[in-house]
Amino acid sequence: MGRVTERRRVVRLRDGAVSERPDTLVAEEPLEIRLNGRPLAITMRTPGDDFALAAGFLVSEGVLGRPEELANIVYCAGATEQADGTTRNSYNVVDVRLAPGVTVPDITLERNVYTTSSCGLCGKAGLDAVRTTARWPISGELPPLEPEVLAALPDRLRAAQRVFDRTGGLHAAALFSPEGELLDLREDVGRHNAVDKLVGRALTRGELPLSHAVLLVSGRASFELAQKAVMAGVPVLAAVSAPSSLAVDLAAETGLTLVGFLRGASMNVYAGEHRVALGARRS
Amino acid sequence: MGRVTERRRVVRLRDGAVSERPDTLVAEEPLEIRLNGRPLAITMRTPGDDFALAAGFLVSEGVLGRPEELANIVYCAGATEQADGTTRNSYNVVDVRLAPGVTVPDITLERNVYTTSSCGLCGKAGLDAVRTTARWPISGELPPLEPEVLAALPDRLRAAQRVFDRTGGLHAAALFSPEGELLDLREDVGRHNAVDKLVGRALTRGELPLSHAVLLVSGRASFELAQKAVMAGVPVLAAVSAPSSLAVDLAAETGLTLVGFLRGASMNVYAGEHRVALGARRS
Repeated sequence: MGRVTERRRVVRLRDGAVSERPDTLVAEEPLEIRLNGRPLAITMRTPGDDFALAAGFLVSEGVLGRPEELANIVYCAGATEQADGTTRNSYNVVDVRLAPGVTVPDITLERNVYTTSSCGLCGKAGLDAVRTTARWPISGELPPLEPEVLAALPDRLRAAQRVFDRTGGLHAAALFSPEGELLDLREDVGRHNAVDKLVGRALTRGELPLSHAVLLVSGRASFELAQKAVMAGVPVLAAVSAPSSLAVDLAAETGLTLVGFLRGASMNVYAGEHRVALGARRS
Repeated sequence: MGRVTERRRVVRLRDGAVSERPDTLVAEEPLEIRLNGRPLAITMRTPGDDFALAAGFLVSEGVLGRPEELANIVYCAGATEQADGTTRNSYNVVDVRLAPGVTVPDITLERNVYTTSSCGLCGKAGLDAVRTTARWPISGELPPLEPEVLAALPDRLRAAQRVFDRTGGLHAAALFSPEGELLDLREDVGRHNAVDKLVGRALTRGELPLSHAVLLVSGRASFELAQKAVMAGVPVLAAVSAPSSLAVDLAAETGLTLVGFLRGASMNVYAGEHRVALGARRS
């Protein structure tokens, strides 16, 4: 985790006075994800949990769903050529190897797929394939969540964000139980990476589908985040800020509960309201 | 501009009371960018200024730099096949045609490049090609900016953000003169799209390189945003929030002035401090 933050010199202007000091910044580096040796995607990410990020990305793409489908993940040694012709391991290239017999999707054969830190669309043939087919339907088992439980989640997320405190520059995503217990949290310069890291860790633990978890993201709810929730089998996606139209449409189509503007005791439920215990409060 | 926002039904919880009402959301739809007929990238964007977005994306990728290199841009008719076998124009696929004689880069020949709303890396062969060669050096002509001028920009950006007021869910990017005059502003669900739209408009107006402009972004300063600033010849990138380590490194290498945490009268200058008139205030 040594590269999660980096130090740089900064010239600060505060109250009319100028000073110089070292500043702590969130680390951002490219990660190339290879699938069975073939380049698949590049994402700008905060180093750390790279294997989880790669695995979670492949869950979002529909390639992985069960831990036994994954043989192993390795850093590619010698991936970066130096000026003197030698190579070194940059720890910025990972290769995901599928278990024997697992179908390598055509994304590696017909297309070279590039992506970045706000990605989820990548790996689809085009616009027609945007609405990915999920491996699992969204579970109907989750009992309705108490609004008070949802309302308490952003403060718990924020309290657990260690790197944000030092840099002020990180997205976070967290999984909570239906009772509001923090199950896992990841921080990353890209919010989609934070979700992929959560999902990849859940995959290797055999916890997919995440049919009894609430996914909270620190920012807005885009289509890609809704897609990642659906692909991981998460029934409730909550965002501190606004959703996009397409995120709401995808949630409505797939049965995902989508909560936005979760601030204080207020929230907007854009889809799947049956999973929020609002009944007695209706006017 | 009819699709910049969309209406969806929302269930609101406020002060313990539940109500239903229509809500205005920022529109998000995929845009496929083709180059001379060949699919190049998909980005999740807010519809509007699609031709500018495509042109600006190609400036960021180093394909376009002068307006005469661009023949035209069109929406691809019949790009979306319907269930009955007919096609309609979704206005979500644009084709950028280069002028005769302009070299079509190998990104279309050797690679199919996919991207999303937070993209800038796409179109590079791999990690080694991340640091794109700019068409123009960052100009040294800009006189040092007064901190007071910089400090006034975020409020001007916010005041000019029309769609944000209605949706609370939009990124913005704006170009300002060295005197703080608002030159152009774009809003988009993806901050990189907002910058591409600005740059694409500048390209078609013959205003590249933007050697006398300040680029302000509403959020954080990532590597990709710094790269887009450099590729457009912008000498100063200012962000309301934190930069990443790689954004600072790129700025330092290319001579870009990078200002972060621009809030009130405070700011952090991470690179290129000679373009900010701090001299008399140094302690």
